[in-house]
Amino acid sequence: MAAADAQDRLRKAGYVASPLAGLPVSVKDLFDVAGERTLAGSKALDDSPPAAHDAPTIARLRAAGAVLIGRTNMTEFAFSGVGINPHYGTPGNPYDRRLIPGGSSSGAAVSVADGQAVVGIGTDTGGSVRIPAAFCGIAGFKPTQYRIPRDGVMPLSTTLDSIGPLAISIACCAIVDAIMAGELPAVPAPIPIEALRLGVPQTYVLDGLAPEVANAFAAACASLSSAGARVVDIPLTELTSLAAINAGGGFAPIEAYGWHQPLLARRGNEYDQRVRQRIERASGMRAVEYIRLQGARADLISRVAAATAGFDALLMPTVAITAPPIAAFERDEDYRRLNALILRNTSVINFLDGCAATVPIPNTGAPVGLMVVGHHGADHRLLAVARGIESAFARSD
Amino acid sequence: MAAADAQDRLRKAGYVASPLAGLPVSVKDLFDVAGERTLAGSKALDDSPPAAHDAPTIARLRAAGAVLIGRTNMTEFAFSGVGINPHYGTPGNPYDRRLIPGGSSSGAAVSVADGQAVVGIGTDTGGSVRIPAAFCGIAGFKPTQYRIPRDGVMPLSTTLDSIGPLAISIACCAIVDAIMAGELPAVPAPIPIEALRLGVPQTYVLDGLAPEVANAFAAACASLSSAGARVVDIPLTELTSLAAINAGGGFAPIEAYGWHQPLLARRGNEYDQRVRQRIERASGMRAVEYIRLQGARADLISRVAAATAGFDALLMPTVAITAPPIAAFERDEDYRRLNALILRNTSVINFLDGCAATVPIPNTGAPVGLMVVGHHGADHRLLAVARGIESAFARSD
Repeated sequence: MAAADAQDRLRKAGYVASPLAGLPVSVKDLFDVAGERTLAGSKALDDSPPAAHDAPTIARLRAAGAVLIGRTNMTEFAFSGVGINPHYGTPGNPYDRRLIPGGSSSGAAVSVADGQAVVGIGTDTGGSVRIPAAFCGIAGFKPTQYRIPRDGVMPLSTTLDSIGPLAISIACCAIVDAIMAGELPAVPAPIPIEALRLGVPQTYVLDGLAPEVANAFAAACASLSSAGARVVDIPLTELTSLAAINAGGGFAPIEAYGWHQPLLARRGNEYDQRVRQRIERASGMRAVEYIRLQGARADLISRVAAATAGFDALLMPTVAITAPPIAAFERDEDYRRLNALILRNTSVINFLDGCAATVPIPNTGAPVGLMVVGHHGADHRLLAVARGIESAFARSD
Repeated sequence: MAAADAQDRLRKAGYVASPLAGLPVSVKDLFDVAGERTLAGSKALDDSPPAAHDAPTIARLRAAGAVLIGRTNMTEFAFSGVGINPHYGTPGNPYDRRLIPGGSSSGAAVSVADGQAVVGIGTDTGGSVRIPAAFCGIAGFKPTQYRIPRDGVMPLSTTLDSIGPLAISIACCAIVDAIMAGELPAVPAPIPIEALRLGVPQTYVLDGLAPEVANAFAAACASLSSAGARVVDIPLTELTSLAAINAGGGFAPIEAYGWHQPLLARRGNEYDQRVRQRIERASGMRAVEYIRLQGARADLISRVAAATAGFDALLMPTVAITAPPIAAFERDEDYRRLNALILRNTSVINFLDGCAATVPIPNTGAPVGLMVVGHHGADHRLLAVARGIESAFARSD
């Protein structure tokens, strides 16, 4: 309250640090905030010292006048797309509190959807910004990894981790993204919908959609098409190889094991045992497998880039299903199956080192997100495309 | 000859593609040249198809008017700093044909020192440009890795490989480096020696120098100091940790294993068994060790960058010894010991993702190189510093 008051006084005196000055921002419990403990949704870090410094992203938000209203709950160690936390409780989805919020940035999405914060700061390793944003009916943005510094943020996967905002609109996401990237907080102008050429991959990401997601996605594509966009089905059969490439578990478990091994040895019993198992299963991975995984990734990135170069963006459902009930995750096998399905589409973009936004599709029942996927490093353009789509949805609504 | 003649005609017609137009350039047997087989100094690749395309570096050289006079011999698969090749013979050091030329770009250095080419194109994973350049008494340059595309070049270590020229002068190296980087082939003006602040690390890189190297290095530093440079001893104790970090073999053997495994299975008996053993020893490495190696590298890079930021460049002997006789490598244990010593100083710079040139120290017996080390990505500045040092040597000579 004191910080918000001080920002109001600065504003009256003609000093406005940024469009975010004086506005409430929530921070996922994975970022160092000076003087606070970073718990990462776990009990196992409750003996760690308070952070000596703000993470650079947090320092930039503070310098931009953001009022940090608190730390948000999350999946322990950011290790799932579900958002269930057995230690600190699971924040209910604002659309229906019996449903999961999505994760791992569960509290970030809930804080925005419930109006407690204008922006939630999250991280996204396989969809942890976009999944809870989609499930809770708000916007979210996962930038190309290199643009936002990850220092002072507890890692999950050094290869895949990225840092992004959840907010009511893409414009809000763009402002906060620019601040965290150390850029001027400008909002890219929406690209007129008639100017857009949008590809809809037919491989992998449309498999096994829940009927309500399939219908909402088809309606969204039809609406953009009738608004003037060229919406083109593309095979993108390159994605067929994804499942085989990641059959050994992918990057996250083994990279997490590198960080967690000493903590597991000391306090492994206090982990969510589902998280612990996923990390420990990777421990035996061979270096040559990991190196080949990197090679396969580089190869897939260049092949997909070539196949999609002619499009302003790709469209796909952010998540294949809508938020399931919290109660649906009681059995381990259901947890595993649903978690894999929830993460499937979003994690493609982390694997491809791309950027992507999720925009709520209008006129659905439970919230459904439209994922708008951009080319590596072309984040401002992707935000301009997503704003164009958001505007078209608003007009058709 | 036809290409050289055509370049002469172009020159008379007023078309000069670059300062390299019409000049003879040799290419290490690791680069794809359209229509030729890339053998990498091995017999095991003699059933591979001819390359369909020039590597981008070779295409750029060709477009710049270089006359490709042939492929140069090398250590098999670039896997040592010695330059001995049991399959195709070992090119003798032009200073004394009984001595090793250094490797792995052995033939590249010999082709330049013997006047067959104005520039030899080499690769440098742990010193494979700088070691043979130093042993043969010429200049060599290892750029920051990312500046020169590595496509179409057979990999040794994806983390450490870089591509660089060997030539009579740093100016020649600068022209060829710029062409391979896709830049305008300009030569950075030498920085006046009185303007330079040069750090001399006292840890690790001065251990166990051969007396003739220690004397030549001391004389070089004294000469630069009396020419007006500020030459400052710095502890750089950060380098103490290098041996422990790389105790598991470092990046090259396991990354090579990733590439070589299928070829070893098929034709492993035709490898130089010393090369084979080094690669196969890495096969059991665990992914978590490899990931920690990457983390330790990133940490060391930032600590060394902080400790050396105040200097225009660092100075150290390129190699701790002068070129030993070819006969000294007969026993495996001598080969291992000498190879490790030969690679020691140069490989520090690959590990740190820096750039470095080697400049011949004047008035030595057997050639001794002075390594001039620059900051990550500041390659043009490093070349300007190295030219300043080269000019000071020429004046003192």
